[in-house]
Amino acid sequence: MSDTPDLPVIRLRPKIDPRPLRFGAPWVYADQLVTDRRTKALAPGSIARLEDADRQPLGIVAVNPVSKIMARMLDRDPDARIDAEWLRARLRAALTLRETLYDAPFYRLVHAEADGLPGVVIDRFGDAAVIQPNAAWAERLIDELTAALTEVAGVTAIVKNASGRARSLEGLDEASGLIAGALAGPVEVPMNGAIYMADLLGGQKTGLFYDQRPNHAFAARLARGGRMLDVFSHVGGFALAGLAAGAESAHAVDGSDPALDLARRGAEAMGQGDRFTAEKADAFDALTRLGQEGAQFDVVVCDPPAFAPSKQALEAGLRAYERVARLAAPLVAPGGYLVLCSCSHAADLAKFRSASIRGIGRGGRSAQLLRTGFAGPDHPQHPHLAESGYLKTLTFRLQP
Amino acid sequence: MSDTPDLPVIRLRPKIDPRPLRFGAPWVYADQLVTDRRTKALAPGSIARLEDADRQPLGIVAVNPVSKIMARMLDRDPDARIDAEWLRARLRAALTLRETLYDAPFYRLVHAEADGLPGVVIDRFGDAAVIQPNAAWAERLIDELTAALTEVAGVTAIVKNASGRARSLEGLDEASGLIAGALAGPVEVPMNGAIYMADLLGGQKTGLFYDQRPNHAFAARLARGGRMLDVFSHVGGFALAGLAAGAESAHAVDGSDPALDLARRGAEAMGQGDRFTAEKADAFDALTRLGQEGAQFDVVVCDPPAFAPSKQALEAGLRAYERVARLAAPLVAPGGYLVLCSCSHAADLAKFRSASIRGIGRGGRSAQLLRTGFAGPDHPQHPHLAESGYLKTLTFRLQP
Repeated sequence: MSDTPDLPVIRLRPKIDPRPLRFGAPWVYADQLVTDRRTKALAPGSIARLEDADRQPLGIVAVNPVSKIMARMLDRDPDARIDAEWLRARLRAALTLRETLYDAPFYRLVHAEADGLPGVVIDRFGDAAVIQPNAAWAERLIDELTAALTEVAGVTAIVKNASGRARSLEGLDEASGLIAGALAGPVEVPMNGAIYMADLLGGQKTGLFYDQRPNHAFAARLARGGRMLDVFSHVGGFALAGLAAGAESAHAVDGSDPALDLARRGAEAMGQGDRFTAEKADAFDALTRLGQEGAQFDVVVCDPPAFAPSKQALEAGLRAYERVARLAAPLVAPGGYLVLCSCSHAADLAKFRSASIRGIGRGGRSAQLLRTGFAGPDHPQHPHLAESGYLKTLTFRLQP
Repeated sequence: MSDTPDLPVIRLRPKIDPRPLRFGAPWVYADQLVTDRRTKALAPGSIARLEDADRQPLGIVAVNPVSKIMARMLDRDPDARIDAEWLRARLRAALTLRETLYDAPFYRLVHAEADGLPGVVIDRFGDAAVIQPNAAWAERLIDELTAALTEVAGVTAIVKNASGRARSLEGLDEASGLIAGALAGPVEVPMNGAIYMADLLGGQKTGLFYDQRPNHAFAARLARGGRMLDVFSHVGGFALAGLAAGAESAHAVDGSDPALDLARRGAEAMGQGDRFTAEKADAFDALTRLGQEGAQFDVVVCDPPAFAPSKQALEAGLRAYERVARLAAPLVAPGGYLVLCSCSHAADLAKFRSASIRGIGRGGRSAQLLRTGFAGPDHPQHPHLAESGYLKTLTFRLQP
């Protein structure tokens, strides 16, 4: 049935329906598998053949006995070989999509399961790339992945970022660093007409998030000729897009000095340093203070870190989102715009929207909801995981 | 408490919580109101003051005793006067938003409750506008609305479109027609680089839907250099946007000859008549036939009418959406794109997405979900009605 008899075989338990896997389900949980001693002894990241209880092949999987997601489907073709050419083919398919979507080579190149490379995230910055091997199989094949990436995308510098929370669930370490080529300081990233400075070696606090690209673009148009406030600004995602679109001024608030420094350098690279101000502060403190001062902006953006990273944190997280909305709403000039973001998996769209609307109301304002945005199309979703879209960006207009 | 003692008063029943109305709820249902003989005798569309059971004022409402939605909040200020200046102020606020969003005066100018004009929909086509007075109060004040619209937006021709289903729930007639100015044939509408021909007097079958604008734009980029199939094309929404973006060819399928004729005229106005073909056919028949012929396209779009217009029609509607996906998926070239749309209120995003994914799978294909789109920002949502967003547009890429 297969010409790869050398691969270990793992098998579904007798009562587990194999059909979801035949129709594209990407994951097999530990409790769905016969976990005999032989399976448990497989090295994390081993490639294996998956069979149903009747020994019918289901495909080639990556196994990690220490993870709850014990197997990830790599290829539903049971004869597939997970080799250099297989990796290149997956990368080529991912690259073709991004080249269709964008004029310049700055994007998320690989978005894990949805791009057929489970657990692997690759962001591209021109000639450089940052790879997050967040599943054991990718950690094991990191040299092959790196080689394929160089060959297919033509990147010369590759950073391995091991800071993702997902890695600890896979039993992987946190050793980040340059694994190919060289980097001379932050990279200039053109996006939506702005220039961002991305410090690829500085970790997630100073990298760049491509996911907000369409939401940046929409907010930027609203900011033309107006005053923008970008809270939880990171390296200036919304603020610099606003300046590029013609905002009169942009004020960025963040808790990280290195991030604000990169934002400032971006504004200067755009020749807009004089219209940009930055403030290192706790976001809640800054919102409270600006409210007390009676400050007003035409566009206020709040793009906080995940307040509800888990189901356990959901209620507290929703209260935090509501509080952000309540503190931010009074800062919006009459007829101005409020952009509220959540990157919490656990807070679904309806819950986040309700918390935001409640907060705006408690902030004494009425609103129209203009737009509901998600992560850009270089962050595709696997159809069987589509309910878990993490990023939601709501744009409100507050009553004139 | 109010200087408008001349207005009739309607009142909430004793056990009805007034707080949602204080916080922005737009509707009062018949069973929430004291429906005494005096209230029932109010002429449909009467302006009244709404009070809670304790006679505290809640605002100014429009009353329609024959509608389930017996009162619609016009203004939470109990002293507001619903006069010409009030109408102009609402229209000015709506206009300001659209002028921020778009460079040319072609958009939905008023989107009912979300723009503070309950039940009123106004689409603008340059110097012309189509108004749908879908609530009794707007029908009653149609002359004042028309005058305000002319004054604020500077339009010269105004069509009243009375074909909406909502009007029968309000007990209103279906008398459409020109109510101001003159129109010399279809109007040329520029959008996303394309030119659409909109026959404003022909009713909804030959008007133009602005709601898909951002979804047209996204699909159009994917179609560059490729072959596009636009099923349920109406006047060529996706097809002409694709041609404007550089599609090699576009084939439109629709059941309406007048709509296809307008699509053809649009393509010709763009100088792209030679790359456009049109076919009058039942969409399911056409999809089936194209599948039998083994036809392949780089982008396939299916934007059907509402298959699930009501809760009762939900199951049958979802089966129809699944069938569309199943028939369309095999027509997509490897690595090509499938755009599936639903304008059914009753089919929420999760249900429509599931039906689409199931259909693609049954059509023998695997997919990535690239983008979830809704109606454009000239179709804002009232925060208390936000769950009812009707338009969902899913863009999939099918496995190379």
